[in-house]
Amino acid sequence: MTAVNETHALGLRSWVASANAEHTDFPIQNLPFGVFRRRGSGERFRGGVAIGDQILDLAATVASGVLDGAAREAAIAASREQLNEFMAMGPSAWSALRLALSRILRDGAAERGRVEGCLVGQHAVEHALPAAIGDYTDFYIGIHHATAVGRLFRPDAPLLPNYKWVPIGYHGRSSSVVVSGEPIYRPLGQRKGLAEVPDFGPSERVDYELELGFLVGTGNPRGEGIPIENAESHLFGVALFNDWSARDIQPWEYQPLGPFLSKNFGSTLAPWVVTLEALAPFRSPYRRPAGDADPLPYLDAAENSANGLIDIQLEVLLQTKKMAYSGLGPERLSRSSFVEAAYWTPAQLVAHHTIGGCNLAPGDLLGSGTLSGPAITQAGSLIERTFGGRDPISLPSDEKRTYLEDGDTVVFRAWCERNEARRIGFGECAGTVLAPKRI
Amino acid sequence: MTAVNETHALGLRSWVASANAEHTDFPIQNLPFGVFRRRGSGERFRGGVAIGDQILDLAATVASGVLDGAAREAAIAASREQLNEFMAMGPSAWSALRLALSRILRDGAAERGRVEGCLVGQHAVEHALPAAIGDYTDFYIGIHHATAVGRLFRPDAPLLPNYKWVPIGYHGRSSSVVVSGEPIYRPLGQRKGLAEVPDFGPSERVDYELELGFLVGTGNPRGEGIPIENAESHLFGVALFNDWSARDIQPWEYQPLGPFLSKNFGSTLAPWVVTLEALAPFRSPYRRPAGDADPLPYLDAAENSANGLIDIQLEVLLQTKKMAYSGLGPERLSRSSFVEAAYWTPAQLVAHHTIGGCNLAPGDLLGSGTLSGPAITQAGSLIERTFGGRDPISLPSDEKRTYLEDGDTVVFRAWCERNEARRIGFGECAGTVLAPKRI
Repeated sequence: MTAVNETHALGLRSWVASANAEHTDFPIQNLPFGVFRRRGSGERFRGGVAIGDQILDLAATVASGVLDGAAREAAIAASREQLNEFMAMGPSAWSALRLALSRILRDGAAERGRVEGCLVGQHAVEHALPAAIGDYTDFYIGIHHATAVGRLFRPDAPLLPNYKWVPIGYHGRSSSVVVSGEPIYRPLGQRKGLAEVPDFGPSERVDYELELGFLVGTGNPRGEGIPIENAESHLFGVALFNDWSARDIQPWEYQPLGPFLSKNFGSTLAPWVVTLEALAPFRSPYRRPAGDADPLPYLDAAENSANGLIDIQLEVLLQTKKMAYSGLGPERLSRSSFVEAAYWTPAQLVAHHTIGGCNLAPGDLLGSGTLSGPAITQAGSLIERTFGGRDPISLPSDEKRTYLEDGDTVVFRAWCERNEARRIGFGECAGTVLAPKRI
Repeated sequence: MTAVNETHALGLRSWVASANAEHTDFPIQNLPFGVFRRRGSGERFRGGVAIGDQILDLAATVASGVLDGAAREAAIAASREQLNEFMAMGPSAWSALRLALSRILRDGAAERGRVEGCLVGQHAVEHALPAAIGDYTDFYIGIHHATAVGRLFRPDAPLLPNYKWVPIGYHGRSSSVVVSGEPIYRPLGQRKGLAEVPDFGPSERVDYELELGFLVGTGNPRGEGIPIENAESHLFGVALFNDWSARDIQPWEYQPLGPFLSKNFGSTLAPWVVTLEALAPFRSPYRRPAGDADPLPYLDAAENSANGLIDIQLEVLLQTKKMAYSGLGPERLSRSSFVEAAYWTPAQLVAHHTIGGCNLAPGDLLGSGTLSGPAITQAGSLIERTFGGRDPISLPSDEKRTYLEDGDTVVFRAWCERNEARRIGFGECAGTVLAPKRI
């Protein structure tokens, strides 16, 4: 658990003017990490930090000579093509670099003259995944989602008996996790309708899942679980994540071993990872609903309970091709909240994942599962939002949607705001569904 | 599908005398690839090929100057710390190197004098995983296993309705795949008995699963499925694989998203990958049982049907600590056969895995699932072999086993033999269960 420190001060302002705009996602209190290069430049990808509408190029910052000591060492590691080496350095290195960057980017910083040339406009870049994701695990901590979807798949038993004991998770496909903006090709697969024989074709029920992705910083040796008290120190940060799903393929394939082709055609991770340290002012207590038993001891910790969740607001927007042609911007479909959605905390996910001896590695991705609130306007997926496709959404383009059509772009946004703290945001996680490349 | 060529000739003999022994796994007709170094040497790991009781060091072979052209290029790639780069080169490169190695290792080869110094005794080495496994998928193609285990979990519906349509598979944990010989730590986890509340502790039902691992050679771009006609050309080779399982953790956690902690504490891959080319003389037709419908077209191909399976014999052996102390060797628990066990072919697994657009990469591991025959003596796991723990196995040490105890070593072996071909083997896939490192 990271403490609130000088980098969070509400009054801090940056000499990068756009970082002081009221609604920027990236004020100086945020400083999220990502990987970028100038679009079309053929440059190598390298680490950067978002500040206002700019990116601070960490390789250039190291070269400018304004960093020293632990911050410089950390910045060198964060200048690589992916952030894994930096993630592996642990909280003290992350914190040292964040503090140094906060100081050189502040109003009045003596280093301004040397650092100004290290900025690259965000409009001019393309991103790669922030880390090489060795393994990707998807959890299922959204209890309203689990209940709503469970009702569609298993009307008699929407929430299974293990749900409140086991932070349910499963292994996902790493190779098809792509960075925001990459196209998502509609998958082909088997569907089973009422006929005796399954049919085959492009999925007709492509859906999104509104998730947060927790990126592992330091790992653990195989056979040595991470106690819940230390669990958060192994997490580097949080990014928006879309676990695209094919709802017609899923019910036919998922028994008995879980979803496979209904998920592995693609998952989208946002380019910016907001560090747990930046999220320190927005922590929330973890409380299980009245009447629910305490978790087993390996999932229980006083510290975790006091400050286990993070007060993150989430929203889903949709822009169809027709909307874009008509000059209509993305339309909000839902608003949700991590605190309201989550039955388990990030620390519990780390403790559970490793309790059997499974080894995590720097850059591993832990998806939260779909983060729906209890109301229909808080649904984190279309299967929930449209009651299993029965209640279409009307769009300002006079179109209707149950599931996604080719050309539809889904955008997730998220932010934290509290009276005593500067609002910070997560940038966008966006993807457009395209027709299959081959049929 | 690779053709039979001069490397398979029954009469071929090697100047490495041990390769001509009747029961060696590694005659000159095999030439499997792996990664090794002299034990305790601190040398870097590098690619090698097993021949009799020796390993041909590929880096040294390149340096000796006996290779040229495509074979030399392939050998350079195969000299790295892992075989991924070599695997990515595709069948013509694999085949060119295999042919060149066959020629320089043959009786009477002019290169013998220069190559002899490139041999390292197998007794003196340690292995690493043959490839960096980006993603590991486990299938479930053993229909007798699916039926027997299904009966224990779901007595009313042992084989689910999708089984004969969908090659069921799910994503596994890559980080905890280890090479043969690495210890397997007994996992901790939740178990649900008859009490209302689950309990927690070391698994009391640690089991093995007898599998084959298919290693992907060339991959495919995301969004572009691999047609079944080309599927086998994307497979580099086959190695023994043990998907260790905790049978008491699995039933409580696996709904609705599949097994997680019951599997991800460790999986063991053998060090030697037998190429599909080496297996060409042992191919077998794929026939679905009488009365079963044809698979959907994307899983159906005349060529695949004619030669879709591989005639591989498999066995499971167990040696307890007491047996080892008493000088008793490993005791055979089961014998099985890939042809008898498998409901789906390797080509069908590749075609299915990619049909929705999922991208495979060189070094990806596709586990077959447990390969049990129909008889109890052909069971590929203890849960089957002991009828869910109800019928213990008696061992020559006067011990009994239902599930594995600390200190138990499980050894898998496999081989191919046919009258008209030289017998080839897969080496050993071994692991010892140890107590948890932390409780």
